[in-house]
Order: sequence, then C-alpha cells, then structure tokens
Amino acid sequence: MHSSSPQGFLVHHGRAGIKDARPDFAVIASEVYAATSAVFTRSRFAGPSVQISREAVADRIARGVVVLSGNANVATGAGGRQDAEEIRRQVAEAIGADPNDVLIASTGLIGHRYPMPLVRRHVASLRWPFPGADFDAAAIAIMTTDTQPKIRRARCGGATLVGIAKGVGMMEPDMATLLTFFCTDAEVGPVVLDDIFRRVMDRTFNALSIDTDTSTSDTAAVFANGLAGPVDLMEFERTLGAIALDLVKDIARDGEGATKLIEVRVTGARDVAQAKRVAKAVVNSPLVKTAVHGADPNWGRVAMAVGKCQDDLDIAPERVTIGFGGQEVYPGSPGPEELARVAEHLKQAEVGLRVDLGAGPHSAAEFTAYGCDLTEGYVRLNADYST
Amino acid sequence: MHSSSPQGFLVHHGRAGIKDARPDFAVIASEVYAATSAVFTRSRFAGPSVQISREAVADRIARGVVVLSGNANVATGAGGRQDAEEIRRQVAEAIGADPNDVLIASTGLIGHRYPMPLVRRHVASLRWPFPGADFDAAAIAIMTTDTQPKIRRARCGGATLVGIAKGVGMMEPDMATLLTFFCTDAEVGPVVLDDIFRRVMDRTFNALSIDTDTSTSDTAAVFANGLAGPVDLMEFERTLGAIALDLVKDIARDGEGATKLIEVRVTGARDVAQAKRVAKAVVNSPLVKTAVHGADPNWGRVAMAVGKCQDDLDIAPERVTIGFGGQEVYPGSPGPEELARVAEHLKQAEVGLRVDLGAGPHSAAEFTAYGCDLTEGYVRLNADYST
Repeated sequence: MHSSSPQGFLVHHGRAGIKDARPDFAVIASEVYAATSAVFTRSRFAGPSVQISREAVADRIARGVVVLSGNANVATGAGGRQDAEEIRRQVAEAIGADPNDVLIASTGLIGHRYPMPLVRRHVASLRWPFPGADFDAAAIAIMTTDTQPKIRRARCGGATLVGIAKGVGMMEPDMATLLTFFCTDAEVGPVVLDDIFRRVMDRTFNALSIDTDTSTSDTAAVFANGLAGPVDLMEFERTLGAIALDLVKDIARDGEGATKLIEVRVTGARDVAQAKRVAKAVVNSPLVKTAVHGADPNWGRVAMAVGKCQDDLDIAPERVTIGFGGQEVYPGSPGPEELARVAEHLKQAEVGLRVDLGAGPHSAAEFTAYGCDLTEGYVRLNADYST
Repeated sequence: MHSSSPQGFLVHHGRAGIKDARPDFAVIASEVYAATSAVFTRSRFAGPSVQISREAVADRIARGVVVLSGNANVATGAGGRQDAEEIRRQVAEAIGADPNDVLIASTGLIGHRYPMPLVRRHVASLRWPFPGADFDAAAIAIMTTDTQPKIRRARCGGATLVGIAKGVGMMEPDMATLLTFFCTDAEVGPVVLDDIFRRVMDRTFNALSIDTDTSTSDTAAVFANGLAGPVDLMEFERTLGAIALDLVKDIARDGEGATKLIEVRVTGARDVAQAKRVAKAVVNSPLVKTAVHGADPNWGRVAMAVGKCQDDLDIAPERVTIGFGGQEVYPGSPGPEELARVAEHLKQAEVGLRVDLGAGPHSAAEFTAYGCDLTEGYVRLNADYST
C-alpha cells in the first residue's frame, strides 16, 4: 500500500474496453463504512450515474465509488439506468457491500450505451480485497481528455487525505466538477463532514470555470472512514480546502487548449454572491480569455465583463478599481510603462486579475474564481471530438 | 438622393481621424422631427453615449443620431461625458436641432478619450442640409471589425424603411445590438412605434449571440418622420421585423471568425422566456459552437446545453426531442446513415438546430436564437486587438 494513502481504502483500476487501450475502470472502496458527502451537477440532462449516486449518499454513509470513463451513460433512456444499476450491484457484491452504499460515476460520450458484455466481464474479474491502494493509477483511470492525472495528498494530525480529480472541458461546475474524489482516514461525523465539504466545494470547485459549459455528470465526493481517529476539525477543513484548491488549479492549467491559469479576485463586494457573480463574469468572458491568451493589456474588456452584471445596480464604474498582477489600470489612464508591465505579467503562466467593487470596508465580501485562457487549441480539440 | 431611401432623411459620413484612414464619423438626421424609439445595453459600464441618448429619447421625439466609430468613450470619467455632450451640441447646432433631440453612439476601444481636436475640426465642417442620403456610406462609416457593411431596405405601403447595423464581436445584445439604426418616412405615432420596436427587437436583435459578451455601448434606434403618410401598422411591424432579422443574420454570418450561421429553434416550451433561455444556452455553448464548426454531429452537446437550464425543473430528458436540419437525433440512437446526413447538414453555411421541450400543444411557446460557430479565427482576432 502506498505509504501516504489513508488507511483502509483500496483501489482497483483496469481496462474494461470502454475507451480504447487506456485504463477506463476504477473502484475506490473503504474496508469499513465511511462518512460520505457528495455534490452533483444540477443539469436537467443528468444521467443515471448521478441519479443513483444522489440516492446512495442520502444517508451520508457509503463504502466507495465505481468510475467508468469514456462513456457518460447520459441520454441513454431506461436501458442506461438498468446498465448503471447492474454494474453498481455487481461491484457492491464484489466488495461485500449493499448496492446502495456504492456510488457510480461516468464521463465521456453522451448518448451511447455502455458496451455491457465488456464491462460485465471486467467486473466479474474483481477480487476483494483489492491488492493495493494505488490512487495514482486511479487518477489515471478516470481521465478522458486530460493530459495529466490530478492527485494531491496531505496530512492532518494523525490522518491522511488524498484527492483525485479529472476534467478539462465542458466545465463550469455548478455544484461539483466533472469528477473528484477525496478519501481520508480521519474520523469526522457525517453531518459535520457534509457541512465542511459543501463549504470547501463552494470556494474551490464551484469557483472554477473552463468554458461555461456544465457537464451532465459532475460528481464530487468525500469518504472519511475514521480509522485514524479524530482530528482538529478546523485544521481538517483547511487541509481539505488546500488540496481541493490545488486540484482546481491543476484542472485550470490543464484546461482544454489552455496555456495559462487565470485567477480573478473580486473584493469590496456587497456580499459573496455578488463577488462570485462578477468574478465568474470576468473569468468566463471569451474576450478577457483571448486577451490574456494574447498577453494583450486590454483592461477595457475586464470593465465590459464587470458591466455584464446588469442587475447589480449598486456596481458603479466610478467606484470600481481594476488591476492586472500588482498594477492598477483603472481608474486613470495607464501610461506606456504601466501597460508594458501589465503585458509582461500577462505573459506569465499564472495571471492574476483583481477587481474591487468599492462597496466599502463594512461590506467587503470577496471571491476568487479560477479559469484559463481561450486558445486556438481549444477550438481545434473541440471541433473534432466524438464521431 | 438614393432612390430607395425614406424621404426627409439626410446622411453625413466622413473621416474625423478617430480610427485611421477609414470613415469613422456619421450623422443620420431627419429634416423634420421624427417619432423615435431606442433600446440600449444594460451594462453597468455603459458609457456617456448611452446615458445621453437614453435621456434624449425619453420624450420619444428626435431629429437623428451622430455615430463615432473606433472609440467607445467608455470608462473615460467626467471628461468623457463632457466630450460626448460637446460633440452632440455641435452636431445639433449644425443641423438646427435642440441638443436633446440628437442621439450619440460610439463603439470601439474602451478607456480612451476621443481625440477632441480632430473631432472638433470635423464637426465644424458639417454643412446643413447634408448633400445626400447615402445610407450605404453610413453603414460603412459605423463599422469597426466588421468585414461587411450591413444594410437592408424595404417598402411598406407608400413608405420606405432602411436599416443599418454594425458589430461582429463582444455581442450578446441584451436589449439591443452594438449599433443599429432604422429610418422610415412612415407615419407612426411615437407610443405605437415604441411598442412595435421593442417587440421587433426582442425577436431579432435580442435573439442574437455571437460570444456571450455584452457591449457597454449597444444602441438600437428607429426614426419615423411621417413624410410618406400613414401605413398599415401590422404590415409595418412585419416589414420592420423582416429587415431587422435580415440584419441579425448578416451580423451572425459576419461574427468574428465565423464561418457558419447557427439558428436554434426551440419549440414546445412552457413560455417564451423558457424557450429563449434554452435557445440561448444552446447557441452560446462553446462546445456546440465548436462542434458545428467541425461539422461534428455530436448531438450530446446539445443535450448538455439544454441541461444547463438547471432551474427549469419541468424540462425532462424523456420529453425532449433534438434535431439537426430535418434529421431527428434524440431520442433514439441515430445510425451511421442518419449521422452522415447530420454531418452533411453541418457542412452548410446555415445550420439549423431544433429542440422540442415536449410541453404539449396547450403551451407550445417557441423562440429562435441566432449565432455563429466558434473558430480559431475568433481566437486569433481577439488575442491581438487593442494595444
């Protein structure tokens, strides 16, 4: 077992034949019941995986999750739901769990049934306990168009946390990202875990936007099996938040066609919701994204994007401040030297935009959103994906 | 005077030196007072042109509009407002109008003051009455990154309508497009004209989305000076709607980097607002836009985009139908022959997507949205624009 993995979690990873020759099937399971929290896409086209998993976590207890990659099992009708239930039941049987204690997640093409004979054969080969806990291999098995596996580990008191994530396109997670799973042997009660997880997701994965599209399959879950005993809960939340944010940045950097990570920090807002709305408007603007790509210090586009929050009638241009990196560009007219400094900052791999709404210190709420630049690579990749 | 121009309108067009060597200054003016209606961007960063014009049309009467292109006069502070008022005052003087009966519109770079000495010199050269009514030249003078001027003419009874428009990027008009102006010698009362214009705009320019970004300067106005006498109002609304829609399609075809016009027709909705929300979600999805660009019959992305309307809890995948051109692709699994037919349709210059929400005939509201594909050309153009 990997030395820095949480106790009592085992990982299966393999090739069921859904995708091609690459790994496409993973099971992450706790040997004992784990407190579990999960958030999902709110898409009206959410597939059976999301529906089944939503039911499975309702009691905040689970044993683990099975992940299929390359096929989203979405828009597949009643047959697709039966397929998902069959796979989940067989995996649960293999690990000695009640089916309703196993989540299922899938991403990939929409509108195609699983190749069930292949999947059945693969599931039948599962032997419990799994021989190891290779989370690195799991992070690879859940990839689709990712160019890099995404995995982060941390310690919290005597406990260990590990998080994996996948997803580089079709991503403006609204309640979750495409797929991300956290396992820990910390002992955290299910209700507290749920509170912590939702707060952490809101500041991390829900702050991420690659291309404004929201997947039908977004799933984020945390499993805490308690084998390492109790931990300081504030430290636990900080640690979980830190690895979640690292994963978010990994995802933004690996955004389809992306060459730069963009962080948009909005301060001086009336409330967090307003700060988030403005930060998302900026990070999602194709004109801001292309300007960052071209290292063009076109700060007017940031002003334009802030202006898109049309119902925020308390946003007044004369109170707004806009900066790139450490350089303020609005109000006032940046001279050639300032613009050159901004252009230099825009050439970095991590670009920081700052917008202060000037609401005053008494209501200085803030939010930071994460995204990436829009490139010709994004267009190339997505103009020829499926068929 | 151009034979198919409405009576009593005169046009000035010229080069003030705002842009470069291209025409960048136009005045469209009626010899007599005209019933006037206008709609504007709702951007919080709307500039003084929009603010001043909004005040000017409050009484639904005006003489005309002055248009500067190449500089948006946005985020320019109190000085920018003074500049706009000075220009408007001098133009009004030149045509013998009250300043408050002249609208002003500008588009182009944000955050830069007008080159006032150049503009003043140009305005001082205006001689009234203008020597002609060359709307074609006006359509050219208001262009920025447009590759084609956009102008449409129509007859309505004894009256003539002409409409010009500009704008190919930073466009998801919310209440108007970047710039579009309609002139007619039909006699239509100002209140009726306002009602008609808002209805027409809602089904045409507000149905257009190039890249989800909303300009700080969107302005659409109609001037009806009555010189040709009364017209049938239903025919007038149909005619105005038809030329507005033609201009919308011209704009979408000329979208930055665009190679295809996309029409998304949503039927079977609960109400028009829902149909519009879904149509916009589809036409704005970068994954749908890139799929159309690549002629990839990836209908799952349309399902994904429909699913993004998360608060429309009455949208149920099992009632939704999706088609490309005449070919239904969902529900059911399109075979290779159907997919080939879809791919063929996607290679056309005009692509039609159809989504039926299955609300039933008793509430079969519909809306059609217009947009364009997302291409590497869009990224190239916008990664290097301003500075």
